[in-house]
Amino acid sequence: MTVKEAEQKRGRGSRRANRVAARSGGAGQNEHLQVPFIRRKIKTYDLLDEESLQKIEQCADRILAEIGIEFREDPETVRLFREAGGVVTPVSEEAWNIRFEPGMLREILKTAPARFTQHARNPKNSVEIGGDAMVFAPAYGSPFIMDMDKNRRYGTIADFENLVKLAQSSPWLHHSGGTICEPTDIPVNKRHLDMVYAHIRYSDRAFLGSITAPERAEDSIEMTRILFGSDFVDQNCVIMGNFNSTSPLVWDGVSTQGIRAYASAGQGSIHLPFLLGGAVSPVTMAGSIAQSLAESMVGCALTQLVRPGAPAILASFLSSMSLRTGSPTFGTPEPALGSLVMGQLARRLNLPLRCAGNFSTSKLPDGQAMQQGMMSMMSAVQCGANYILHSAGFLDGLLSMSFEKFVMDTDMCGALHTYLNGIDVNDETLAFAALAEGGPGEHLFGTAHTLRHYETAYWDTGLNDDQPYESWSEQGGDDAMISANRKWKKILNEYDAPALDTAVDEELKEFVARKKTSMDDAWY
Amino acid sequence: MTVKEAEQKRGRGSRRANRVAARSGGAGQNEHLQVPFIRRKIKTYDLLDEESLQKIEQCADRILAEIGIEFREDPETVRLFREAGGVVTPVSEEAWNIRFEPGMLREILKTAPARFTQHARNPKNSVEIGGDAMVFAPAYGSPFIMDMDKNRRYGTIADFENLVKLAQSSPWLHHSGGTICEPTDIPVNKRHLDMVYAHIRYSDRAFLGSITAPERAEDSIEMTRILFGSDFVDQNCVIMGNFNSTSPLVWDGVSTQGIRAYASAGQGSIHLPFLLGGAVSPVTMAGSIAQSLAESMVGCALTQLVRPGAPAILASFLSSMSLRTGSPTFGTPEPALGSLVMGQLARRLNLPLRCAGNFSTSKLPDGQAMQQGMMSMMSAVQCGANYILHSAGFLDGLLSMSFEKFVMDTDMCGALHTYLNGIDVNDETLAFAALAEGGPGEHLFGTAHTLRHYETAYWDTGLNDDQPYESWSEQGGDDAMISANRKWKKILNEYDAPALDTAVDEELKEFVARKKTSMDDAWY
Repeated sequence: MTVKEAEQKRGRGSRRANRVAARSGGAGQNEHLQVPFIRRKIKTYDLLDEESLQKIEQCADRILAEIGIEFREDPETVRLFREAGGVVTPVSEEAWNIRFEPGMLREILKTAPARFTQHARNPKNSVEIGGDAMVFAPAYGSPFIMDMDKNRRYGTIADFENLVKLAQSSPWLHHSGGTICEPTDIPVNKRHLDMVYAHIRYSDRAFLGSITAPERAEDSIEMTRILFGSDFVDQNCVIMGNFNSTSPLVWDGVSTQGIRAYASAGQGSIHLPFLLGGAVSPVTMAGSIAQSLAESMVGCALTQLVRPGAPAILASFLSSMSLRTGSPTFGTPEPALGSLVMGQLARRLNLPLRCAGNFSTSKLPDGQAMQQGMMSMMSAVQCGANYILHSAGFLDGLLSMSFEKFVMDTDMCGALHTYLNGIDVNDETLAFAALAEGGPGEHLFGTAHTLRHYETAYWDTGLNDDQPYESWSEQGGDDAMISANRKWKKILNEYDAPALDTAVDEELKEFVARKKTSMDDAWY
Repeated sequence: MTVKEAEQKRGRGSRRANRVAARSGGAGQNEHLQVPFIRRKIKTYDLLDEESLQKIEQCADRILAEIGIEFREDPETVRLFREAGGVVTPVSEEAWNIRFEPGMLREILKTAPARFTQHARNPKNSVEIGGDAMVFAPAYGSPFIMDMDKNRRYGTIADFENLVKLAQSSPWLHHSGGTICEPTDIPVNKRHLDMVYAHIRYSDRAFLGSITAPERAEDSIEMTRILFGSDFVDQNCVIMGNFNSTSPLVWDGVSTQGIRAYASAGQGSIHLPFLLGGAVSPVTMAGSIAQSLAESMVGCALTQLVRPGAPAILASFLSSMSLRTGSPTFGTPEPALGSLVMGQLARRLNLPLRCAGNFSTSKLPDGQAMQQGMMSMMSAVQCGANYILHSAGFLDGLLSMSFEKFVMDTDMCGALHTYLNGIDVNDETLAFAALAEGGPGEHLFGTAHTLRHYETAYWDTGLNDDQPYESWSEQGGDDAMISANRKWKKILNEYDAPALDTAVDEELKEFVARKKTSMDDAWY
């Protein structure tokens, strides 16, 4: 459906002036909640007991010791693991199985930081990753774009830039993400240059670089050297790569070479098994979790062999499937439980965690989408995940990035800011005096206590409609999709690019241009 | 919007045959998850530490001891509390303030059961309330009905009956609820007769009776005597009343007389402060929780003075407000946190808890509705609430019962069944052998392990669309509202009333008729 159709169908003609008025007056500002990243003040939701956690860890250890991990097309990675004690068995000319004695990877991982800072070009936006710190980043990797004006279509660099601008404009995201959509109008071998440039130019937050080829990873890092200076980059994390294993139990050479590129530059990396239960991992959640732990530990450990102390993020993406059709399902209950366990396991390993996000299989930003998104996102928040990719825009089983869902999700991310602040219990918040002031039967609207707290007591949505039915109906009777459609256009209209030093900008542009002319277009 | 408009707007003509086909084949059956009530297998999410919990309890005790509760128009309740040690101060001719020494109510509450059974006329559907047992019941009390065919209108007894049928048809609810909507076409003083009859006739699950006047409470209980026999009713809980305090800190006579009626008959009662923070309770959540505990303990204690051992349910309905407009807000993060704390407090009191539900302020079953509903419902599930009223249909800040949201919510309740089963960790679920079978790089679709578990491994929705975009689009490209609209009509079409003994049915009808002719219509 398009907005025009949706408005026509309601038979209420064009928008009215008062519709805008109703949304002004600072709705959704919540300035007291705005932070460069969240410091979680609530306990994590620890689902499993010690015995169950140990069983999962022992199963992961057994997978690593008895089945092993297959490495492909990257002899250097094989060399590093062999030297560290891995038992290497050739599988073919370009593939090696490596088995790891129980405890070996945990020992290697001791040099990995439990918490680190990823610097943003605006120092106020630098984020911490690990411990009680939590960072929300947009969805990543969809080839398609959806909006209610043009339905589904392939993403372009123009969409990419608009999405970076939308992310930058939300106080409820902390990170610009990476492949916010695939810019399919740019050749595959040159895409990363435009993507990294867009993150730098249209956002002043931290971001992710390319992982699709080792030289693209190197280009991404090189561009941060222009931005931050080589010395700074050598000593600080300013970019990260998000790497997928090839489950089950394979790390391919493109990934391991990329991981080595980021690690040797002292940059961060995320080590993600994308586990579709019943397909590339066991159909029972305990087994998926054990496998996820095993595969991700291997990726993380590789970074420490390359450069001890390089930031590495344990990660998991647990998903289920419709076993009648084979379709993957997202935002379902079993992976939500699994994420809670991953939080426990990451803390036991003393590593930062990426997991879950605002997942959905819906093809529209409807009730299904937000129900599934909330179930999944709550699990990320409650498990204490430190870096939550896919916090905004995820639709269609990750095939589509939705402009409407993006702003719906960022509003939800705002609500999660106040959720993560928990409940303060002290004399002021217990408010005995406020209740005693009027006593039984007396409203508290005008008490001094209410006046002291009314601006910060409750989450103030910038999108959802909490008006009485009559006001809502008079203003057009819009559903959330339609409000969201208006919202993202308004945000893009009002967007101002953060200042960027002209010399740096020129040097970046020159780098991109030089790289682009150095090679022919390739579409793979 | 109406379905017709929505289908027109998509420009895809009429429904296709394959749309139905795609939904057949047992989607959403999940027979392994069907239970008369849930036994929670996951830990509760315990938000606060011991010290904070004690502070809240001490504040509640101080409210009760120093401010006191006002009782109106029910001298018998005042007499009972005076005899039990309450300090009574007359406020007016028909109102008394009673203060309670710290510990006094807790002592009285020791005779209340931590867990009890509410019997259903079909013994297979009897529910346990308390401990690890959880019961989902439909939303309660909306004057309006919403559906996508006719938009918003006042509820009628025909709507009421249809909603009871919808509830009865869902395996994911366990209880028929009470005032599932207000049947506004029936005089107020006779409504309860038709409502109780509809619950008995169209459902074979447990239900709630009337609380709007003591004689209506008595009628409700009398009808269960016809159904179950007087002796059985005297010795067992077969009906409950849901009573609201008049916050802040008032219990009116209609409520306390009703509570006494249920308790003296040995029936259950729920004691609910409906706390709109900033209006009838402090604007800070800690204060709302303390007040909720104080008010609800008083109602529960009254039952024990009337008949020790009568079932009583501690309850809380915490809500926030838009402090720019004064509108109540539902499904927001602060009350979700508050519910987690209420779970802790109820367990410390050793009483069953009713709290939260599928709350929303949205006026349509859209993304906002389901996002808010999920946040609120998750808090009920995670806090270990035992009786969750408002599990299905709640829209428009409780002013409207939505047919579409009803079926969307019941599907979500199904997903929560599997969530509450948690994660089993054992050799079979860890599935080391399944992973070892193929080894690195080999899919697990056909392993013996996958085949053993594929029918029960994951929640299988009966409503959400998990198909690829292309299939979804070919089948009409519906959003969740439209699918839900079709779904509730299909369910009502296929509904079969559970058998009811003809003699009992006649006696019930006769009772209703006699009562109706015994009084003039009254509309208050």
